[in-house]
Amino acid sequence: MSASNVARESAELQSALRASAATVETMIDRLLPLPDGPEARLMEAMRYATLGGGKRMRAFLVMRTASLFVVDERCAARVGAAVEMLHAYSLVHDDLPAMDDDDLRRGKPSTHRAYDEATAILVGDALQTRAFEVLAEPETHANPEARCELVQALAQASGARGMAGGQMFDILAPSLGKLSAEDVGRLQALKTGRLIQFSAEAGAILGRAPTAQRHLLAAYGRDLGAAFQIADDILDATGTTEETGKTAGKDAAAGKATLVAVLGLERARLQAELLARQAAQHLESFGERAADLRALAAYTVARRS
Amino acid sequence: MSASNVARESAELQSALRASAATVETMIDRLLPLPDGPEARLMEAMRYATLGGGKRMRAFLVMRTASLFVVDERCAARVGAAVEMLHAYSLVHDDLPAMDDDDLRRGKPSTHRAYDEATAILVGDALQTRAFEVLAEPETHANPEARCELVQALAQASGARGMAGGQMFDILAPSLGKLSAEDVGRLQALKTGRLIQFSAEAGAILGRAPTAQRHLLAAYGRDLGAAFQIADDILDATGTTEETGKTAGKDAAAGKATLVAVLGLERARLQAELLARQAAQHLESFGERAADLRALAAYTVARRS
Repeated sequence: MSASNVARESAELQSALRASAATVETMIDRLLPLPDGPEARLMEAMRYATLGGGKRMRAFLVMRTASLFVVDERCAARVGAAVEMLHAYSLVHDDLPAMDDDDLRRGKPSTHRAYDEATAILVGDALQTRAFEVLAEPETHANPEARCELVQALAQASGARGMAGGQMFDILAPSLGKLSAEDVGRLQALKTGRLIQFSAEAGAILGRAPTAQRHLLAAYGRDLGAAFQIADDILDATGTTEETGKTAGKDAAAGKATLVAVLGLERARLQAELLARQAAQHLESFGERAADLRALAAYTVARRS
Repeated sequence: MSASNVARESAELQSALRASAATVETMIDRLLPLPDGPEARLMEAMRYATLGGGKRMRAFLVMRTASLFVVDERCAARVGAAVEMLHAYSLVHDDLPAMDDDDLRRGKPSTHRAYDEATAILVGDALQTRAFEVLAEPETHANPEARCELVQALAQASGARGMAGGQMFDILAPSLGKLSAEDVGRLQALKTGRLIQFSAEAGAILGRAPTAQRHLLAAYGRDLGAAFQIADDILDATGTTEETGKTAGKDAAAGKATLVAVLGLERARLQAELLARQAAQHLESFGERAADLRALAAYTVARRS
């Protein structure tokens, strides 16, 4: 591809990311209306934790994979909003003093700093609940079988055998001695990979896609997620707090298990690029319609924040 | 009713409670199998937090209301297990230092004391996830519409407009000045009532019951839940730690909003009894088949733990 083609594709991706982020922002805003009564403070804090920030990569994946099939855009945006709420819950709880103890998130005070610890625990709890509620609501899909599949797939990706299990593994990692690259890969697949994979598969669930296509999207999501996590660790090791909007160098300081620590910066970078190319290859059969999803894979390892 | 009838009914209820508690215990055990890998510690702690204790009143409600209709007992037990996992998640998070800071639960160390705070946060998170996952799984009901309704109803009962909102209200209560009996009633309906109401309605959802019958069971659950909470507050004010298996006198010490504090012990007791009778009356049209549900209402306000 020529240099001008690369530049054009990147500009198109940025514009597509901005458009889908705006759509999902509006949807989250609608899905989290303030109730009456003193408990409104909880919803206010839930809105603080979810609105106004982030690239919304997971929602982008849901919406763009859904667009490969015949799916109402509003339905896809609801699932995108649900996965972003689930992701936000995990960030709010990860930032708690008893977990990663991080004061900064997306360039602003983390929820327990802006509010308090008790509120932040409840914010995470209630965002998770709302995510599953949205998936089960009739507005998300006309077919209740599809809605149940979404609830099941999101639960599998985020529960004790997915994201939460990965977080437990991550907490225990410093006490497990030196981890192999394979162990770290498995840890990261659980902790962040599974939710990214769910986001890529969600379009196929919404579109009632044939199994083969669902598997291709799952494979894309799995490799993309792995590339994304390595790129994130590289940014943590090399970026500044200002660039990334979160406290820089925290992983190394905390002795966290990352592929950068196990393989070194250069080999980690090569592996991320390999995974990103592999991710894009899974989508070849979708042709031009999947161009932005392939561009996302390339962008994931080239980004600066 | 004669004294011997009362005694017989109470013995029958105790035996029915024990039988359903054993069924749900077995089901929870099956639904939380240990995975491989270091993350197994999370599931181990989830099992600690849910197995081996409690009257399982919520599961009893699900299973007994389901028995009023044509519902496979295994399906009802799965929903009973899901609601007990959801309830257990709320207890684990409520006990955290940043929340109620309680070291004792069901007569043993609370989860963050038996493990650690980070693990306890993840235990609550992953128990919630598993509860929704179980409801969405095909084994829970042949009709996916019923499974979606269960997910939605449980989410409404436990989210920001239900249990979590009630917990937020409860945390803010000391800063709100003197609350009226109505305010306290609303707080408790959110915090504990909605989940008990869900449990009573779940049988009607599983049984695809006509709306009128579902409403009767919801009304029963609402009044039962209110009676239960007042009885709990009375026990907290008058019981010992040994009797109740949790730290006694904590509500008063924490200046918590309870109807005992607002109405005094005697009027609170009368109101609980009134609500329990009212709860039982909603079930008259179900006849003898609902005898144990009516007995539960009476037991709720008469119990000593």
